[in-house]
Amino acid sequence: MRHLMSPLDFTVEELDKLLDLANDIEAHPDKYAHACDGKKLATLFYEPSTRTRLSHEAAMLNLGGSILGFSSADSSSAAKGESVSDTIRMVSCYADICAMRHPKEGAPMVACRHSSIPVINAGDGGHQHPTQTLTDLLTIRSLKGRLGNLTIGLCGDLKFGRTVHSLIHALVRYENVRFVLISPEELRLPSYIRKDVLDKNNIPYKEVINLEEAMPELDLLYMTRVQKERFFNEEDYVRMKDFYILDAAKMSLAKEDMLVLHPLPRVNEISVEVDKDPRAAYFKQVQYGVYVRMALILTLLEIEV
Amino acid sequence: MRHLMSPLDFTVEELDKLLDLANDIEAHPDKYAHACDGKKLATLFYEPSTRTRLSHEAAMLNLGGSILGFSSADSSSAAKGESVSDTIRMVSCYADICAMRHPKEGAPMVACRHSSIPVINAGDGGHQHPTQTLTDLLTIRSLKGRLGNLTIGLCGDLKFGRTVHSLIHALVRYENVRFVLISPEELRLPSYIRKDVLDKNNIPYKEVINLEEAMPELDLLYMTRVQKERFFNEEDYVRMKDFYILDAAKMSLAKEDMLVLHPLPRVNEISVEVDKDPRAAYFKQVQYGVYVRMALILTLLEIEV
Amino acid sequence: MRHLMSPLDFTVEELDKLLDLANDIEAHPDKYAHACDGKKLATLFYEPSTRTRLSHEAAMLNLGGSILGFSSADSSSAAKGESVSDTIRMVSCYADICAMRHPKEGAPMVACRHSSIPVINAGDGGHQHPTQTLTDLLTIRSLKGRLGNLTIGLCGDLKFGRTVHSLIHALVRYENVRFVLISPEELRLPSYIRKDVLDKNNIPYKEVINLEEAMPELDLLYMTRVQKERFFNEEDYVRMKDFYILDAAKMSLAKEDMLVLHPLPRVNEISVEVDKDPRAAYFKQVQYGVYVRMALILTLLEIEV
Repeated sequence: MRHLMSPLDFTVEELDKLLDLANDIEAHPDKYAHACDGKKLATLFYEPSTRTRLSHEAAMLNLGGSILGFSSADSSSAAKGESVSDTIRMVSCYADICAMRHPKEGAPMVACRHSSIPVINAGDGGHQHPTQTLTDLLTIRSLKGRLGNLTIGLCGDLKFGRTVHSLIHALVRYENVRFVLISPEELRLPSYIRKDVLDKNNIPYKEVINLEEAMPELDLLYMTRVQKERFFNEEDYVRMKDFYILDAAKMSLAKEDMLVLHPLPRVNEISVEVDKDPRAAYFKQVQYGVYVRMALILTLLEIEV
Repeated sequence: MRHLMSPLDFTVEELDKLLDLANDIEAHPDKYAHACDGKKLATLFYEPSTRTRLSHEAAMLNLGGSILGFSSADSSSAAKGESVSDTIRMVSCYADICAMRHPKEGAPMVACRHSSIPVINAGDGGHQHPTQTLTDLLTIRSLKGRLGNLTIGLCGDLKFGRTVHSLIHALVRYENVRFVLISPEELRLPSYIRKDVLDKNNIPYKEVINLEEAMPELDLLYMTRVQKERFFNEEDYVRMKDFYILDAAKMSLAKEDMLVLHPLPRVNEISVEVDKDPRAAYFKQVQYGVYVRMALILTLLEIEV
Repeated sequence: MRHLMSPLDFTVEELDKLLDLANDIEAHPDKYAHACDGKKLATLFYEPSTRTRLSHEAAMLNLGGSILGFSSADSSSAAKGESVSDTIRMVSCYADICAMRHPKEGAPMVACRHSSIPVINAGDGGHQHPTQTLTDLLTIRSLKGRLGNLTIGLCGDLKFGRTVHSLIHALVRYENVRFVLISPEELRLPSYIRKDVLDKNNIPYKEVINLEEAMPELDLLYMTRVQKERFFNEEDYVRMKDFYILDAAKMSLAKEDMLVLHPLPRVNEISVEVDKDPRAAYFKQVQYGVYVRMALILTLLEIEV
């Protein structure tokens, strides 16, 4: 039985197959409308994440399956002191597959060791958020036609941004990828990723402070939210949160076919005037997130259509 | 694409068609049991309202569709600072139709401007609650056989009661309608409704303080809850909340075919001894609320059976 | 119409039939996969209980039905002052059957008096938790082959443990049942159960303080959690909570075919090293809980397959 703990759980070949399946679902949704009839997805969200929860639920419903679960720890047995390993053994009796979101790093890993159903890591603290990375990869491959030969700008909070770290891990496996790391000094990409991932794989990158300067060379700009909860104090947050705001003026410096991605929710790091720009792909990304999760559920349940 | 923001979004003719459909659903539920197979309703409740949420969900399930969503703002992305317009763009990827409840007036209107799926306003602050009005109209038409030629008593909190305001707006479009406005001085119907709606449409009405006096002439008595949260101070609430309590003694003064309606939940404004009176229609109203929401979902999704 | 308020609502014969049905469901799940097509279960949880809620929901989904409801009182109309009797009349319009969990004893009984759909008591305060007892009985009968001729050890909090009290009530109806009551002095089985249930039915029992001493003679050991919320002060809780911890050493004293049951969630009263012991039946119990609730839903809805 297979789980999804990290985006690297899939080889490049397996990933290609998964993304192919997602594209086939996009093209022929009716073909998959009953693929999971009688199957149940449990969403075990120990912290709220409406977007991620609803995306998994929509995916299962699109496949004809059913959903059950909890959306915050308050309403879970965790409040009574139950361990994750006991909870997953219980849930294994209630569902055929589950998606777990947990504030503690490694909790889904503990779960999958005691589970008799596939476990999807739907985010564990600052650690991993693999279905977001799958979403990003499907969006890029669908809209750019490739995952290699790209100059990718990563902008905003590169220090704590888990989606950025995961995306780097995933993209270094493709040919001819370059990164432009755009962040304030205080939120630079950690050295354990620069050294152990980028340098080790001989991936060219540069670090810049100015978003405008970076724009012209990018094939892809991945914006991230500056999350208040990552900061140690209010003052730092206020000083930096508006540092990198993407607006129409900055977009005018970019290539005509550059894509803007964002894991969402955004607060104000992308001006709403950019929404109408055909290069804005962040809402399309949401739809790709459903397709890739449908493909993931089918793959983990080993259902072929 | 069509949304439901206000009960007046439908013309009288469209409304007749919707209520006809609701009555057909009531008569032949099996005919509609698979009308929404494969469709998803998202309930986006930024404040809890169990009754309204479950009524929409039951409606969708009765039509063979599925449900997903959130039941309070705590578990939504709003807590992360996401705008309603971004949330609805996300939800448009997850569902085929949505019902939104929001504490802020106008939020569903903002949503429908950015939505690619039909939006049902399931209550926005003190502003509108159109599905309650549709429920009231279906109940009256089904049990009285007509929406015109009625003397309607509105009792309780006429100042803040959003359901009362909406019902007045909806009923003034019918022939020969009279209102008896029964409330304490402090909770009178606002002048912008008396003048701009009743007077402007030449609708006869009178204002009375004594519920007993009004009883004999009514074809319909619409009771409302005195909502604690509408008061500025505890003292005013305590003084007034029991002012208008409907009991068996008062019911004995009414016509034999008078109907009692109430949007529910009630606290103590209708004595439980009235529940067994055949003229008590407030629990039937709940059932009509499901039928009319089924008709609404079919209408907005443009599904014909 | 029939409700489930107490495990004693069913005669021994009816119970046999229910457990037979549950075993048939276990053996032939596909036969029942569409038994509740088009039916809806409402879960009305006025206090959170993820395990019990999900078990009912999984049961209904396994039967092809749908689920709706609320998982805590915060999101219910109760917050607006609505009575249980009004809520159940509302829910009767939204669902075909409901499971109610309530912190107040007797609330489900009030509900069933005003309900037009079957009500399952899913736990009311310290009073009853009949579906747990049905689960226990199905587990014992399935794994031991009988409900009589058993020496049953009940260990832990026998004073406040509602599941223990219900199980005693249910088991005294079978032939040749003996109890060993294992608890600290402060948490002894209340005299109203010792006298009015055990003595009155001439059921042999003994009370012991030492779990090790009791082990060799038991056919069944029912462990319970020492619930912090039952204690009057922190000190008492801390002193006693680890008093009776089942571990491999104690298991070595037991019969080879003794069963260990636990209503779950456990905190630390059963050491995780016991989980791998083939006599540990507490996770199988979770699965039996789904089967017996499927049988219960079918029985209360009078659906024959």
